[in-house]
Parts: sequence; structure tokens; C-alpha cells
Amino acid sequence: MTVSREIELEGHIIDSGMMQAAFGIVMDMGGSFSVEEFDIGRHKTESSYARLLVEADDEEQLQSIVHELHQNGANPADPKDAKLTPAPGDQVVPTGFYSTTNHPTFIRYEGEWVAVEDVEMDCAVVVEDGDDPRAYTKVLNAVEEGDLIVTGETGIKVEPPERPRDKEGAFGFMQGGVSSERPSVSTIHQIADAIEETKQEGGKVLAVCGPALIHSGAREDLARLVDEGFVDMLSAGNGFAVHDLERDLYGTSLGMDTESLDHPRKGHKHHIYTISEIIRAGGIEPAVDDGLIESGVMYECVTNDVPFVLAGSIRDDGPLPDTITDAVEAQDAIREQAHEADMVLMLSTLLHSVAVGNCLPSTTRVVCVDINPATVTQLLDRGSAQAVGMVTDIGTFVPILAESLLEEA
Amino acid sequence: MTVSREIELEGHIIDSGMMQAAFGIVMDMGGSFSVEEFDIGRHKTESSYARLLVEADDEEQLQSIVHELHQNGANPADPKDAKLTPAPGDQVVPTGFYSTTNHPTFIRYEGEWVAVEDVEMDCAVVVEDGDDPRAYTKVLNAVEEGDLIVTGETGIKVEPPERPRDKEGAFGFMQGGVSSERPSVSTIHQIADAIEETKQEGGKVLAVCGPALIHSGAREDLARLVDEGFVDMLSAGNGFAVHDLERDLYGTSLGMDTESLDHPRKGHKHHIYTISEIIRAGGIEPAVDDGLIESGVMYECVTNDVPFVLAGSIRDDGPLPDTITDAVEAQDAIREQAHEADMVLMLSTLLHSVAVGNCLPSTTRVVCVDINPATVTQLLDRGSAQAVGMVTDIGTFVPILAESLLEEA
Amino acid sequence: MTVSREIELEGHIIDSGMMQAAFGIVMDMGGSFSVEEFDIGRHKTESSYARLLVEADDEEQLQSIVHELHQNGANPADPKDAKLTPAPGDQVVPTGFYSTTNHPTFIRYEGEWVAVEDVEMDCAVVVEDGDDPRAYTKVLNAVEEGDLIVTGETGIKVEPPERPRDKEGAFGFMQGGVSSERPSVSTIHQIADAIEETKQEGGKVLAVCGPALIHSGAREDLARLVDEGFVDMLSAGNGFAVHDLERDLYGTSLGMDTESLDHPRKGHKHHIYTISEIIRAGGIEPAVDDGLIESGVMYECVTNDVPFVLAGSIRDDGPLPDTITDAVEAQDAIREQAHEADMVLMLSTLLHSVAVGNCLPSTTRVVCVDINPATVTQLLDRGSAQAVGMVTDIGTFVPILAESLLEEA
Amino acid sequence: MTVSREIELEGHIIDSGMMQAAFGIVMDMGGSFSVEEFDIGRHKTESSYARLLVEADDEEQLQSIVHELHQNGANPADPKDAKLTPAPGDQVVPTGFYSTTNHPTFIRYEGEWVAVEDVEMDCAVVVEDGDDPRAYTKVLNAVEEGDLIVTGETGIKVEPPERPRDKEGAFGFMQGGVSSERPSVSTIHQIADAIEETKQEGGKVLAVCGPALIHSGAREDLARLVDEGFVDMLSAGNGFAVHDLERDLYGTSLGMDTESLDHPRKGHKHHIYTISEIIRAGGIEPAVDDGLIESGVMYECVTNDVPFVLAGSIRDDGPLPDTITDAVEAQDAIREQAHEADMVLMLSTLLHSVAVGNCLPSTTRVVCVDINPATVTQLLDRGSAQAVGMVTDIGTFVPILAESLLEEA
Repeated sequence: MTVSREIELEGHIIDSGMMQAAFGIVMDMGGSFSVEEFDIGRHKTESSYARLLVEADDEEQLQSIVHELHQNGANPADPKDAKLTPAPGDQVVPTGFYSTTNHPTFIRYEGEWVAVEDVEMDCAVVVEDGDDPRAYTKVLNAVEEGDLIVTGETGIKVEPPERPRDKEGAFGFMQGGVSSERPSVSTIHQIADAIEETKQEGGKVLAVCGPALIHSGAREDLARLVDEGFVDMLSAGNGFAVHDLERDLYGTSLGMDTESLDHPRKGHKHHIYTISEIIRAGGIEPAVDDGLIESGVMYECVTNDVPFVLAGSIRDDGPLPDTITDAVEAQDAIREQAHEADMVLMLSTLLHSVAVGNCLPSTTRVVCVDINPATVTQLLDRGSAQAVGMVTDIGTFVPILAESLLEEA
Repeated sequence: MTVSREIELEGHIIDSGMMQAAFGIVMDMGGSFSVEEFDIGRHKTESSYARLLVEADDEEQLQSIVHELHQNGANPADPKDAKLTPAPGDQVVPTGFYSTTNHPTFIRYEGEWVAVEDVEMDCAVVVEDGDDPRAYTKVLNAVEEGDLIVTGETGIKVEPPERPRDKEGAFGFMQGGVSSERPSVSTIHQIADAIEETKQEGGKVLAVCGPALIHSGAREDLARLVDEGFVDMLSAGNGFAVHDLERDLYGTSLGMDTESLDHPRKGHKHHIYTISEIIRAGGIEPAVDDGLIESGVMYECVTNDVPFVLAGSIRDDGPLPDTITDAVEAQDAIREQAHEADMVLMLSTLLHSVAVGNCLPSTTRVVCVDINPATVTQLLDRGSAQAVGMVTDIGTFVPILAESLLEEA
Repeated sequence: MTVSREIELEGHIIDSGMMQAAFGIVMDMGGSFSVEEFDIGRHKTESSYARLLVEADDEEQLQSIVHELHQNGANPADPKDAKLTPAPGDQVVPTGFYSTTNHPTFIRYEGEWVAVEDVEMDCAVVVEDGDDPRAYTKVLNAVEEGDLIVTGETGIKVEPPERPRDKEGAFGFMQGGVSSERPSVSTIHQIADAIEETKQEGGKVLAVCGPALIHSGAREDLARLVDEGFVDMLSAGNGFAVHDLERDLYGTSLGMDTESLDHPRKGHKHHIYTISEIIRAGGIEPAVDDGLIESGVMYECVTNDVPFVLAGSIRDDGPLPDTITDAVEAQDAIREQAHEADMVLMLSTLLHSVAVGNCLPSTTRVVCVDINPATVTQLLDRGSAQAVGMVTDIGTFVPILAESLLEEA
Repeated sequence: MTVSREIELEGHIIDSGMMQAAFGIVMDMGGSFSVEEFDIGRHKTESSYARLLVEADDEEQLQSIVHELHQNGANPADPKDAKLTPAPGDQVVPTGFYSTTNHPTFIRYEGEWVAVEDVEMDCAVVVEDGDDPRAYTKVLNAVEEGDLIVTGETGIKVEPPERPRDKEGAFGFMQGGVSSERPSVSTIHQIADAIEETKQEGGKVLAVCGPALIHSGAREDLARLVDEGFVDMLSAGNGFAVHDLERDLYGTSLGMDTESLDHPRKGHKHHIYTISEIIRAGGIEPAVDDGLIESGVMYECVTNDVPFVLAGSIRDDGPLPDTITDAVEAQDAIREQAHEADMVLMLSTLLHSVAVGNCLPSTTRVVCVDINPATVTQLLDRGSAQAVGMVTDIGTFVPILAESLLEEA
């Protein structure tokens, strides 16, 4: 046996997203609904009206659906009064107190909607009865014993602001972007799972890498991931390869020993010496074949037949013989990789990530990692359906990812 | 006389936002519509169907509405073939060529929908006819004379990814956040207009200010705005007032002369000397009355009866006698200001802006300015209906704002 | 008639920088000195000793030099007792009180050096006499009437930490970097002065520009600077030129109207249409000659014979026919510009600024402007002798610079 | 038997730091020296002169010391000609080629110093002989077979720019700041070693923590560090404790499950419910004693008798009964902790870190971790002698630190 209740939506319920939100809430919370009436305003200025019959399995479920709908601006056709409970002590709210949003709010009191004064977030609502009943917010530490506090979920109406359809001009409804304050290790584990899934489905993983990955000490772990088959293609620039090779030849990256953190004298010359050695050898593959290069990401690419594209740029030293110096030619090579990839890891490079991103359909899985939130924001702004952005340190990201993948493997 | 066309929407058209987008497009582009059929899936897994009759004033308007609807996943009930035009030269596309999105795309060719291969953004679509017609993307510099290029707006179908209703887990549809790459001066002018509007409506403007405003040399311009009546209330901390007063007493802010950029010896002691002088005087107002303080933001507040709240924090030196050291007491003072404000300018302070923001209803106009995108992102994440965030330099923002406001005044 | 005093330095006075600091202080403050004794430790572990005779014009000057030397670890050969003054009231320090550093500090009291307990910054020092005299810090608000407070500048010894010569390992003396909290408008005025000076000396100014300059609405002001002869050469990429031309052809930059801040429909296609139009015209110069392009930075470069280099990159759309797609060829063109330049403005582009910076001798004047502190830090890390870095908004920087230069002109 | 050579320094050798650098080089490279002559300029405009006799164990060591001295502006009293070697092939430099700095450079050729033309970094120097010999730079890819390339370390003179003693005005010698591109895991290991060392010496470790630590999923690892005795004192704010307790009570932090990354409905209310529950219990310790709180950082503090200070701020919700709301009182509590600490970990909080840092002597070991480079820069700007700053993700830093410490333990 089901229970049901009629709910009304009014206003610009379609283009404000209110109706979309309402349908979502009912379905997510396990209820169902039928649209009993639906009048659509056909012009910008006309408002719309919908009446839904919401059904649930029991009264408790129905109440929490209806509460959630209120929070999003839908109102029951026949509202009930809010429940009031006296505060048991100073600064102590009754269990189940209603905690406010920052939107205009109304409390149903003796059959009338009373506007809550001084609305602000995370407060309790106190009702003062009498001839001219009032409702207002109180922060927790201002609550006094005996205050009549709104509890439970009935008799409360909230009016969230309508999101304007068009953002014209500077002002408008704005939303935050990518934050660094998300659970890092758990997110990395989910990325590891997605890589495994991609591989199990026979998909290909493309790693797009910037030189910061080497400087920050993640080279050995990325090399292991290449060696173990978790990276099918590599896209990078001249600098990435130079510093990876420098670490093999001289133990440094940009002149710093990435283990001891020392700066050997002449260390700042190591990258140019490295380029000179590789030019002398005729390129990276010959240098590996000759036994000149014996470790690192490029070494693992060569020995594991993982194809790599080194795209040139105007800031390159050298460049290495393997670097494609013409931008159009390099784009063609990148395009081919991008079209083959089922999952792309963008690792601390804006330039190469944008280049790859430009060639990707919106259906490819994308992981974007950078310490700079602006970079992550820019890279995610392309409408990928399956994307995750992390504002984190590539020097800790890759080791934790590698541990997660290699342990399970 | 109007023209019309039937359009179909299918899938999770409500919770993916497709229907909302479609209604918006028609209304924004000056058309109108009626909903001829509407079947709503009541459960997560059920898809919905809607058929709209779209009306416009003439064929050209109708076509561009229908084109825009396609781009968003709606399809005409009776599609036509795409128009093909040969490229007039190598690397030269025909005028009016169709430039791709990165979503799965189909071209209507001889009555059939042909999937476009290798979809990527900002490309031309080339159709090869023959027994087994193909359509694929070409970047502009790869176009060859004679290639059959899709032009115009008919016979093209695009399938944008559905935005999942719930974001569970790490992966999902992600959107970028606040960017610094927006037109700065134009945005500041619109903010100036909004301040004027607020004042003309009899509203009150609350400025929430961090010490960076003083260090970055914007003190004199803010003082003028207070003096000219554009700021009705000020909310800041001990440090803001100290450095404002230091500039008056010693010509420096945090020890640097904000005009010559010199660091006088002992300059790093000026702030503590300032605090000591103001304590001796008995507070800011007595110091102004005694003629000790003769300029600056605090001076203008005192002489223009602009109420200020200086809220204490654990990083304060001193503090000044005016600073409210108890956080709960300070919150109460801030709350009162926040509730009175019709427009809030949050100027380069995270701490005080969050404190004020916590007390604001979502209907108050908010301007948030900071050089750090993460700060702007965090402050805008509260669902204000009328908000603008700027990632910019407070030291240039305030002077340009002042020029804009004082010129017009 | 001069006065003089003997000062001793002891420890690793050379490699800790103490001696360099001491010499600098005396000379900066208008005194002179002779080195009376000088024993240099020849090995890492040996300490050195120097005795200087410091001379000044009068006792007051001498005292302030000697005080400053103390603060930096030099001590008078015959120290005097510190001056103690009772606090006139609670929380009120005597005028001229000594405000502490955070370094180990000693107070000369009755001929003995007493270590100050609980050293911290910005405090007063209280001395308790008696058989076993003590000295300790008090924050200003803890001072009580009658506390004996150290005032003046004699009888105080400070021991700043030695800066280790080599930074090996993670720990060491660290210094902060570029801050956004500096006086913005004053700094821009000094940059304008330097540009004027460079031009008056017959020097050449090279502007290195990223597309953010256009997006942020600074295009018109930069165009005026080119037209008025303040920019002699331009170095940029394909994107910069495309968005500059897009604004001329369609009124937008990356699809946004930089004045009204509106996003016209199809605006996101404007850049690719722009590229297509310029390819059709045969390049930027022909497009200007044909009257297709009538304003903007590239227009002013063409009409004022300001040479420009557009260096290609793998993220380019198009590219324009003027863009040099080969990185080595582009570097050669950039190198030529860099060697000719006497002053370089690096404006919101990391890629092109690094490329130019790679080719510059350390004697060229450099201005580096970016909203991202990491970019400014990286660009200044090349040891230019005459450099200024600003963490600011390019969209406000260029207008204020232009106003400053064009007003004076 | 030792070998020796005379070296001259001329110019503002003290205040430019040249002499300090020279002494350091000789000692670091295992040589020794005596000062044979030393004339100090006593005024700003006078230049100084020093002649050193540098001694080394063998000719090879002597040569590399002398080379390093040249690079820093010191010159041998009797210079030799540079060694020239023909390039063995196009784009191939001879082994041991001299790679340039960006400073003015001179090559000793047939007894004369020839200025190198077009100086730029990381190039080879080519000498053209003939009546009027020239020296100029070539990038590696421009080298042609047979070019006479400067190799080895003799006959090369470099003039680094003098660092002006005073930074007045905007322009000057600037140095970069804290970079995120340093080896992350190796740095964390060195921090773990320093913590162990501090503990073994009987020292105390103070952890200063921001709420981002909890949101980013590092709570469990920090709790283990407290439990295992690596943290002796905790300094934080109300928000840190609230979100730590919220995770215990509701499994979320700011409403997000930090393991599954899901957002349960009503999750955004969990923090205010948590505060309400702890107020009801009478504080954190009673809540632990009652069995209400069973895990987390605060739980471990209570059960392991680790003293904690929760300092209030104006952005607090609640606050918890344990939070000290008066800023001056809170500072006193923080001051006591700071004075007791031998090592301070500043973990992703600017506010609390500045508050603690204000009370620290410059001799306390400091570790500062934040994702925002500006925060790290600001915190390190206090002249600690033993400090390390990391621009990294607190959510990966703490787990790697814990693994490193707990493994060894």
C-alpha cells in the first residue's frame, strides 16, 4: 500500500531547473510521481505551473521526499503547521531541529505562512506566538532554554533564487569550481579502479606528462606503470624527456638530486649535457640500444614498445632528435594518439593537455591533475562526460596511484 | 504569418537538462512553442519523450532555432539532408562551413544519418560519397581543394553527453570555475553601475576589507569612496585598521612606502608603533578627534559617521582598543551589518568575507574580489542569486572602481 | 668633528653574510669605517673575527648606526647598559620602547648580558631586577603600569641565525617569493617611467603577449601603446592574434563581448571563423590591406611597421598563415627580437616569456606580469639584474600603464 | 704537496656578495685560501680589491675551483687562453664544451679577452679566428661541423650582475620563491627524519592543523600519528574539530563521505548537527568519555593526553564548548604551546599558522605545507633558520608522512 500527496510547482519552473530538480528528488529517494497538471509558459515572462502526485511506500518516506521538495521550492497542495519544541537548555537545541538555508523561508503557524526574519544559514528557527506571531533565526549559541524551536520537516517553505537562464553581464548565479579540499587518497583509488576497468575492457590509456612530474620525483613510479602495462601511449614534450634522461645520466632533474635534494655543482648544466649526449647517440632509441640510458620513463617506453610523441615547443633546449619541431606535424601525431585513447591522464602539463584535449571527443574518460587550480579549471571546461579533476601534487599523486595499481595487480 | 516545425526530444530529457535547454533556446531566440506530446519516465531508468511544435516568424529564424536545438540534442521530426559545398582551395573552407563540437555527431546524407568519424572540436566535416558514404572531421589546415564540406545548419545531429543527476564518486560531468581571463575593466564598470543602482534605490553598501587592500596601495581610493558616500558600513579586522593608520602616521604600510616603494629602516616596526600610539590615544575615534590621525579609510569612517566593525583574530598584533576580541561578540556585530546590507563588496579577505557571507540571505547582491581563484571559488559557493566574482588585483580594482564611480558622480 | 665607536663581528661572518650586511649598514646610514683587525677562517668550521672602527658625524647618527649593527649581530666593543623606563599605564608602553625581533636577544643590565626569555616578534622587553635579574617579552596588551620596559637602542644584542652557505637537503633558511600584496598603481607608474627612459635612451621595447591580455579586455589599450610608439616589437602566439582579430571581426574574444560581457550565440565559433577568414585573405597584412581588419593590436603593428613574431604551438587552432609552426625556426625569430630588445614586457604568457627569456642576457630590463604567482616566480628565477615582477591582473595593468604613458606623452 | 694560484676580486665585492661567494666556493670544494691583499671601499661609490692565494691538493681540483670562481666573477691574476675544439659533426658539440650563463662573458684568445656576442643561456661558444677574432654563442642545433667550440674551464671570464644592496623602487634583483616542482616524497622522508630526530632528542612536536586536512581525507593518518606519540600538542580551530567529529558521528566531512566520495542527502547539515551533539554532551572530552565519539584526531588527543588548543574565529559555526572565543585568551594559549615546541608542523591553515608563527623564536624548526604557494611564501617570510616549505596536497602529504614514520617505528 502506498501513500501519496499533491505537490505544486509554480514560476519559471523549467528554465530555473526547479522541475528537473523535483523529478530527480522523487526518483532518487525511491518514490514515483504522475504529472496531474502541466501549463507551460511559452514566453520568457510567463510563469508555468505543475501539479504532481507524489507516491511513496510509507508515510516516513513520503515525508522526507516532501521535505526535500520544499527545500527546492515545491510546496504541498495542503500544507500542515510546523512542529515546535522548547529548547531543553541554554545553547542546546531540541533533537531534530530544523537547520536553515540562506534562502527566504516561511514557517506554517496556525494555518498561516510566517516569513522567517533575518534568514541566514545553519541557524535554528524560533517562533514567538501571540497575536502577531513572529519567526526568526538564532545561531546555536544564542538559543535560550524554553525557546520554541522548529523541529522536523513539515510546515516549512523555502524559496531558492531562480537561476537566470542566460548569463548576460557580470552579475548572475555563480558556482564554485574545482577545490583542492577533496579526499585525495580515495579519489586516487577511484582513478586506479577506472584505469583497471579500462584495461580490462581492452581500452588504451594515454599519459600526457609535463616535466614537473620528473622534478617532483615521480619518475620512477611512472616508469614502473609503463613497464607493468598500465600506460599504452605517452605524449610529452622535449623537456619531459630531457629531465627523465638527465636523471639516468647524472642523477639529477633540473640539476637537483631528486632523492637527496642536493644541488651538485654544475648541476644546472646537466640538462644541456644530456641533450648533447643524446644528439651524439642519434636519439633516444639508439641511446637505449647502446646501453647509454638504462632506466626511466623513456627507457621503459623504448623497451616495452610503448609509442611516444615528443612535441616541440619554443621553450625547448636542444631539442632532442626525437622531438617533432613542427607544430602541425606534432598535432597530427597527437591527434592519432588521442583518437586511439579510451582514457587520458593529464599529468601536470597545461600545454600538452590542451593539445590532446583539443582532439578528444567528449566521450573519452579524462583525468586531470595539477597543483594549479586554474589549470584544472581550464582543462575541465570542455564538457567531458566522464572526467575527474584533482588539484594535487603530481609528486605524491603518481606514487600513490602506482602503489594502488601495482598492489592489486 | 508564422512558420513551424515539429521537434522531438527523447531520453532522460528532464534530469539531463535537455528539455530545460530546449525551452530556453526557443524563447531566447524569439520563437514560441506548444508541447504536443509529453511522456515522462517516472523512474530513473525510464526515458521520456516530448514532441514540440516550434513556431517562428520566418524560415530563417526557424532554421536557426532548429539548428540550435540540434546542437543540444533535439531533432526535427522530418530531417533534411545536410548541404555540401566543395572547398574553394587548399586550407580554405567554404563560407558558412559547419564547425564541429566534440560530441558524437551525425550527418544526414541521402536520407541516412552517417556518423562522423574522429570527432573533435573546431573542425570542418568532409563527406565522401560513393556506395558507402563516409563523414569525418578535418582541421582547417588539412582541407584540400574540392573536399565536400558540410555547410549551413540542416541535416546535422549532435548528441551531447547526458549530465548524470547525481555526482557519486570521483568521475562525473565537471564544470570549470572562476577564471581570471574575463574583461576586467568592463566588469568593474558593471559593478560600479550596480553600486549606483543600490544607492539610488536607498540601499546600503557594506565593504568587507582585508589588509592587502592597504598594502597594495588602494587605501586612498577607498577612503574617497567612503567620503563620497558609496560605502555605508565597513567590516574589517585589526590588521586592516593598523596598516591604514600606519600609513597616516609613518607613510608606510607593513613598512613599505606605498608610493615610492622604498623600505625605510625600522619600517617593519611601524605597525607596532602605530598600535602603541592608538592605545595611548584611547582608540581610533579619540585619535582622530585629537588630530593624531588625519587621513585614510578609518579617518573617513569616523568623520563621515560610517559605522565600522573591527573583528579580532588570533593573528592580531596589539590589538587596537576598537577591535572586538571575542569571536561570538564580533559575529553579532557582523551579523547586524550583514542583515542591513543590500550589497556587499568582499575585498581581498577570506576570513572576514566568510564571516559576513555566513550571515547573508541568498538575495543580497555580492561582489567578491581576490587575486586567489580558490578564495573567489569558495566565497561564491553559497548560492547567491546576484553575485559576481573577480580574480583580480585589489590594488588596481579599487582605483578603477573609484574612478568609475567618482567620475559619474 | 666626528665621533666613533669600535664594533666587533665574530663567527662565520663572511659566508653568513653578516660582514656584508654590516658594511652596507654603515655606508647606507652615512657613516664610514675602517677595518682594524680581520682574521678569516679558512675552513668551513673555523670562525672569523673582525673589528671595525665606525665613524659618524654626530652621536645621534652613531647611535642609530650602532643599533642597526646590533640588530644584525655586530656588537660594540664596550657595551653600555640598556635604558629602562616604567610603563605609564596598563597596556601602554613608554615612547621609544624597543620592539623585539624573533631572534635570540640579550639585554645589558648592570654590566651583564641577560638573555631575554620567551623571545617572539613585536613585543616589549620587561626587565625584573633583584638578585637574579630577568628579562622577558610581553605583548603590548599584557603590559602593566610600572613594568620596566627597555627603551632606546643601547645595551641590546641580537643573534640572527646564520644562513647556511649551502642548501643541502630539505631544511634550510628559506625566503619568501613574489607577493601580490605590493602597491600596484605605484609599481605600474615606475614601470611606465622605465619605458619612457628606455625610449629616451633610444632603446627598444619588446612586448611578449598572451591571449589572456585580449580576453581580459586590454586589447584596445595595448593597441594604443603600439600606435603611440611605446612598443617596438611584438612576440606572441597564434591565439593572441586570433582573438585580437576576432574582436575586430565579430566583437568578441573567445566568444564573449569584452564590453557588454554578453555571450552571443555561436560566439564560441567566432575564433575558428576568424582563422578561416584570415586564411582566405592570405594572412594578416593582406587582411589589413584589404580593409577586412580595421582595428586592434595586429592592425596597429601592420600600419605602424612594428615587426611581430607569431610562434606556433601544439594547442593552436588553424593556424594563421603568419604563424611560424616550426619551433626551431620560431626560436630563431624570437632570438633576433630578444637580442635587439633593451626592455622586455612579459604580459600574461608563460610559454612565450620563457622562450624570450631563454635568449636574454642578464643585463636586459625585464617586467613580468601575471595573475599566477608561480608564473612570476618561474620567470624571475633567471637572475636578471633589472627586473620587476607583478602578480596582478593583465586586464587592469595595461589600461593603467597606458593611461600613465599616454598622459605624460 | 699542494698547488696554488692567485685570484683577484674587484668591484663592490663585499656588498654584492662576491667575496662571500668566493670564500664559500673555495671551502666547499675542499681548497683553502689566504687573503694576500684586501682594500675595502668605505663609501658606497668606492670599489674594493682583494687578492687571494687559493690552494688545492692537485691541479685538477685547483682548476675546478678556479673555474667556479670565474663563474662568480673572480679572475686569475695570470689568465690562460681558452681551449678550442672543432665540432665533430653538425649539431654535435665536442665533449666537455663550455655551456654559457646569461651573464656578460669573455673568452681569452691569443692573450686578449674577447667579449662573447649575443650572450644567452645554455649555448656553446664559437670562436672565429682571423685578424679580428670574434666569439659568439650558438644553440646546440645550430652548431656546424668544424666550428671552433670553447671547451674545458680555462680562459673564460663571466661578469654576474651586482646585486644592489638596497632594494628601492620597483626594479631590482629579484629571486624566485617557493616552487611546487620539488621532489615530494623525498622531501617528506626528510621531514619524517627531522620529526624522529626531534623526538629522540626529547623535543616536542606541535601540529597546527586546518580543516582542509580533514576534508582531504588525511584524518585517519593524523590520528594514528597522535596515537603513536609523534604529535605532542595540537593547535587548531573550531572547524577542524567539528569536521573531525562529524566524520566520527556521520561518516562525512563537510557533508562528503571521505571514502566513497558520495554526498548523502542532508550531508550539508551534518556539521551543525555535530556541534549540537557536542554542546549537548558538554564538550569534546565528555563526549569521548560518554562513548559518543570513538575515533579521530580529537579522540586520540583526549585518550592520549595530548593537549589541544581550539582557537575561535569569526567564521565559526557554533562554536564547540572547547573553543576559546576570545582572541587574546586564545593567543595566550597558543603562545604557551609555541614556546614549548621544538618543531612545528603547519598543516594547511594560514590563520592558525600565522598565529603560532608570531610567537615562535627563529630557532624553532618549522615545516609548512599548503597547496597555495602564496600561503607557503607568507609563512616562510619570517626568517626561520631551520624551515622547509612544501607546496603540496595535505591529503597526500599526511598519509605518506605517516607511512614513513610508522614503518620505521
